[in-house]
Amino acid sequence: MIIVMEKNAGHEKIGQVTSKLESKGFQVHLSEGVERTIIGGIGQRTQEVIELFESLPGVEKVVPILNPFKLASREFKQETTTIQVDNQSIGDLNVQIIAGPCAVEGRDEYLEVAQMLKEAGATMLRGGAFKPRTSPYSFQGLEREGLEILKEAKEITGLPVVTEIVDPRIVDMIADFADILQVGARNMQNFFLLKELGRVKKPVLLKRGPSATIEEWIMAAEYIMSSGNKNVILCERGIRTFEKHTRNTLDISAVPIIKQLTHLPIIVDPSHGTGKWELVEPMTLAAVAAGCDGVMVEVHQNPSEALSDGPQSLKPNNFNNLVKKVNNLRIALQASKGESVVEV
Amino acid sequence: MIIVMEKNAGHEKIGQVTSKLESKGFQVHLSEGVERTIIGGIGQRTQEVIELFESLPGVEKVVPILNPFKLASREFKQETTTIQVDNQSIGDLNVQIIAGPCAVEGRDEYLEVAQMLKEAGATMLRGGAFKPRTSPYSFQGLEREGLEILKEAKEITGLPVVTEIVDPRIVDMIADFADILQVGARNMQNFFLLKELGRVKKPVLLKRGPSATIEEWIMAAEYIMSSGNKNVILCERGIRTFEKHTRNTLDISAVPIIKQLTHLPIIVDPSHGTGKWELVEPMTLAAVAAGCDGVMVEVHQNPSEALSDGPQSLKPNNFNNLVKKVNNLRIALQASKGESVVEV
Amino acid sequence: MIIVMEKNAGHEKIGQVTSKLESKGFQVHLSEGVERTIIGGIGQRTQEVIELFESLPGVEKVVPILNPFKLASREFKQETTTIQVDNQSIGDLNVQIIAGPCAVEGRDEYLEVAQMLKEAGATMLRGGAFKPRTSPYSFQGLEREGLEILKEAKEITGLPVVTEIVDPRIVDMIADFADILQVGARNMQNFFLLKELGRVKKPVLLKRGPSATIEEWIMAAEYIMSSGNKNVILCERGIRTFEKHTRNTLDISAVPIIKQLTHLPIIVDPSHGTGKWELVEPMTLAAVAAGCDGVMVEVHQNPSEALSDGPQSLKPNNFNNLVKKVNNLRIALQASKGESVVEV
Amino acid sequence: MIIVMEKNAGHEKIGQVTSKLESKGFQVHLSEGVERTIIGGIGQRTQEVIELFESLPGVEKVVPILNPFKLASREFKQETTTIQVDNQSIGDLNVQIIAGPCAVEGRDEYLEVAQMLKEAGATMLRGGAFKPRTSPYSFQGLEREGLEILKEAKEITGLPVVTEIVDPRIVDMIADFADILQVGARNMQNFFLLKELGRVKKPVLLKRGPSATIEEWIMAAEYIMSSGNKNVILCERGIRTFEKHTRNTLDISAVPIIKQLTHLPIIVDPSHGTGKWELVEPMTLAAVAAGCDGVMVEVHQNPSEALSDGPQSLKPNNFNNLVKKVNNLRIALQASKGESVVEV
Repeated sequence: MIIVMEKNAGHEKIGQVTSKLESKGFQVHLSEGVERTIIGGIGQRTQEVIELFESLPGVEKVVPILNPFKLASREFKQETTTIQVDNQSIGDLNVQIIAGPCAVEGRDEYLEVAQMLKEAGATMLRGGAFKPRTSPYSFQGLEREGLEILKEAKEITGLPVVTEIVDPRIVDMIADFADILQVGARNMQNFFLLKELGRVKKPVLLKRGPSATIEEWIMAAEYIMSSGNKNVILCERGIRTFEKHTRNTLDISAVPIIKQLTHLPIIVDPSHGTGKWELVEPMTLAAVAAGCDGVMVEVHQNPSEALSDGPQSLKPNNFNNLVKKVNNLRIALQASKGESVVEV
Repeated sequence: MIIVMEKNAGHEKIGQVTSKLESKGFQVHLSEGVERTIIGGIGQRTQEVIELFESLPGVEKVVPILNPFKLASREFKQETTTIQVDNQSIGDLNVQIIAGPCAVEGRDEYLEVAQMLKEAGATMLRGGAFKPRTSPYSFQGLEREGLEILKEAKEITGLPVVTEIVDPRIVDMIADFADILQVGARNMQNFFLLKELGRVKKPVLLKRGPSATIEEWIMAAEYIMSSGNKNVILCERGIRTFEKHTRNTLDISAVPIIKQLTHLPIIVDPSHGTGKWELVEPMTLAAVAAGCDGVMVEVHQNPSEALSDGPQSLKPNNFNNLVKKVNNLRIALQASKGESVVEV
Repeated sequence: MIIVMEKNAGHEKIGQVTSKLESKGFQVHLSEGVERTIIGGIGQRTQEVIELFESLPGVEKVVPILNPFKLASREFKQETTTIQVDNQSIGDLNVQIIAGPCAVEGRDEYLEVAQMLKEAGATMLRGGAFKPRTSPYSFQGLEREGLEILKEAKEITGLPVVTEIVDPRIVDMIADFADILQVGARNMQNFFLLKELGRVKKPVLLKRGPSATIEEWIMAAEYIMSSGNKNVILCERGIRTFEKHTRNTLDISAVPIIKQLTHLPIIVDPSHGTGKWELVEPMTLAAVAAGCDGVMVEVHQNPSEALSDGPQSLKPNNFNNLVKKVNNLRIALQASKGESVVEV
Repeated sequence: MIIVMEKNAGHEKIGQVTSKLESKGFQVHLSEGVERTIIGGIGQRTQEVIELFESLPGVEKVVPILNPFKLASREFKQETTTIQVDNQSIGDLNVQIIAGPCAVEGRDEYLEVAQMLKEAGATMLRGGAFKPRTSPYSFQGLEREGLEILKEAKEITGLPVVTEIVDPRIVDMIADFADILQVGARNMQNFFLLKELGRVKKPVLLKRGPSATIEEWIMAAEYIMSSGNKNVILCERGIRTFEKHTRNTLDISAVPIIKQLTHLPIIVDPSHGTGKWELVEPMTLAAVAAGCDGVMVEVHQNPSEALSDGPQSLKPNNFNNLVKKVNNLRIALQASKGESVVEV
């Protein structure tokens, strides 16, 4: 942490800062320039500590130097985390393909599409049973019945299932039915929910909030990890920008950045990230080329009958093509790996 | 709802759209142009319905015409809502001044500042007992003890208290202690919390999410209202933009827009909206000049010792000046009211 | 400038940084912590210097400490700049009210509205003769004929005129006709135009680009000032955000921030800043309450016949009301001035 | 264009709208619903026309239906445009790799790196001679001398050269030296420059402004095309968002969207789009996987000595690896093409 003093801040104010730094356990480095004094404080940075020093008289600004996250950071754990789900793994060289309709809408429909997805090459299933919807007048999900359908789909296909958890009161119920618990974008900073998920034994798929910085997103993972659950999968799903042509702007650069800053796996959701099914294929391929560990794609037998997210849902045939292309791409990328001795 | 068909979409696709519109209870208006056919559908619009039609073959886009909210809308209820809290009212010609530290940090400190604020002219008190923090390593609030301190402050000062509710499991506990329940920006779309607040008898102060559109924010109010609680106060607190000089960009234009679209009261939080105490006074005056029903300002006896939000907290003396200026401004604005016969 | 070295960057890399700092004329302060070494460099910061050090091996990041602008900064010149235009001044306690249609559309119409505006209390006139339009198929302005109409309007009303300059080739022509030369938002970083304006003797009104940070905006002023023209008036006109209800989000907080960082006057354009005439009055009052030196408002006799910006143009009657309210507000704010002994 | 009337707007106001529509040459379609009347107007939409109707009494909103661009649109010209530059083509199945330092810094350095780039597989060279810089105190380019060096580099390597044009007064000079004229992001809406480029015989590479919507960007291309030059190449280079970890957020989804809306080629600049050389490789691969026609990459022999953009410049060795990976990827993608019979 660097503390920049105001121009001509006197000795008294500088003394206050350094003694407060020492009282908080920081090692102090003083640089007195002609115009300004700059004070380095080496120790445990938190948001509170930064704000505390910003509020001291004579302080112009406080510049954090180290990242605020620990357990999630690549510095803390060099080795990439691989998360095991049944006999599959996320975070090694695979590209997981998680697919399914936005919401579980009925038993027969879901079992039918699940079977189709398995045949097309999906490696996991998705489907919402509890739906957080912008409007109170929209379909809110089949709730517990939806969870039972997901479980049945798993028994039939053998594929693990991912579903969203929206309420801290039913964490255990969801954990009984699902293999991966998804935290939706709107709940990324629902800290009480995150803490509950810290005590669950199943992996958590944590979506980035539409206006969350990458740092805030990693801090949300840190909440879950520091509460006891190290199995966090990050999921980029688009950020909110001024562009109106897409529902969100899918931030593909989050993939290499997350790989650099953390040891956690990252997947990408091109369906929510664009809002338009025609864009799902090119953006899936882009995400895979950028190095993600998986994608999460909405597929529906009949998008124009879907109870939610129809416009961004692929038809099964198009999904089928997509899986083939992803697999070709993955092979080409792995063949290229040998070339990448990077010179820093 | 207007459905724009693709150029040269044939009769069959147009027929599918119109018969689906009819099956959903919409009245259909067909306009066949030289290049394109446009179909008007008059009926109940929801997000699902829009998506459903967007997914039909031959549809280029669906344009919603009416706002998606009802209970909150000025069309539904012309008369401005006034909310009563003890012997005070929000939404009529008053400007409520809600003040206090970000968090309740201890009994003696809180009672001291509460007394100062009352003397300076604050009309309500604020203070967080449960704090949602970006970092799991930051101070999380005094929890129940904080609520008890708030209650004691109310007994001593006679001022109503506002505090944040972050967890649907403790809605009743918070409602026992506080006069107004605040939903923080990060929970604006925590729909399960919103529904719980629908069954509470106390007013809810609903902060705008940092990346929420005005429409989404009103829809969040609609959740609470449609669940049974009509006493919703909206609070603008800044949106996330590319500008780095302020913590957020305070969207003052939300004040007249909310007044136009809804019948609900709106207050403004210039402390979170800027993140810097030096900007709190000018932005408070701006918000009042724009017509807001109140402001919510962070004040701390000793900002550089605050456990959170020190840099944006006013000292009591500066708050004192601010209250005087707000009162002068309010008088000047009311004197001007006669002039405003607007010509449309 | 603070240079943060990577964890465990060795002596060699640290030595490279310090010797390069010295070779560039920087004074060096070294702080060697347990985990990281931090190097302070005191000297002339430019963007190039920052990038140069960011590119050195072993450097994790470079944190600029001082602002990059000089001539515009409050540190460089403590005293507020007042700009004289004929017998009027911008930057002291006045609130200039610059009004007129978006574009000069014809001689008779312009002279008529100019007369109305003068009677209503406008202190300067605006009107575009060269219009930068998003579409090549839109009205592009009356060009030289428009300038002549503006000059005639000035002769009749006695009010100074403001008009936009879009092309570096015609700076002298515009300067012959106008009292203030306006740089539009889209040209804020048209550096070749800015340099030309540096050699003009008339004041320049520099609009903020819709996606410009405050720092970039001040740097654009710095271009004009460092090329020889110190008379720059800044104009906030809204930034681009995700909110769709307004054309832009008017960043009122720019007013106090500009006052803090620079000695230049700042005015606000609530017409472009909102895009809706109904919002112009509340946002004008908000801007004045926040302390701006003037406002720039679009007025048209018949907005539904305007060749551009009709939806955001006030009718003369509503403008009339607005001027009265601005004047009342200004008096009330000045009466409050005595109260503002701010305690830092 | 759809005109939505206010609730209960009477016959008189509806009549005004329809007669004005007819007077402007629009075909009128009236849909009178129970609550609202909706009027369709079929004809030539411009921004002025939209604003004109928005300003009429009784109009709630005007919804444009058709895109505002023509010459650039896929509807106007179905067949994809291929642009010939010497013996190369942009817009067919190739992936052009345009590479070079940000600025031409000196003759020997530039000729050296040009040779390296050619050997590594670059297909065109880039280098700025006139540099638009945020600060007036930064390096502004070698100007005419830089152009001569570029020409010499072309003679030696045989590769076409791309350079930026920033001033409408020197369009002809630049066109004498360069094979492709680049319009930088900050000049995307410098309409007077765009019009000058319309009369040039060389292709124009038009970068997207950092806060430009895709529609505005295409309209900028329309300016050039409607002024006479049909050879426009679009270049995505990142948009400005709240995320601070990258200089911009590279909007990869612009690639498939541009392909859908227009017939023009699109390339991607991952160097400016991220600001960090470590992100250039994954984002280049992502852009190619999404279907772009080329990439533009900054390479410098010695990034820590670069006069601009060092932190985002690749070293020649890393560029070498990148070219191999791009070529492998392109082959894999073309092999997959057979699979993509898309079902709408």
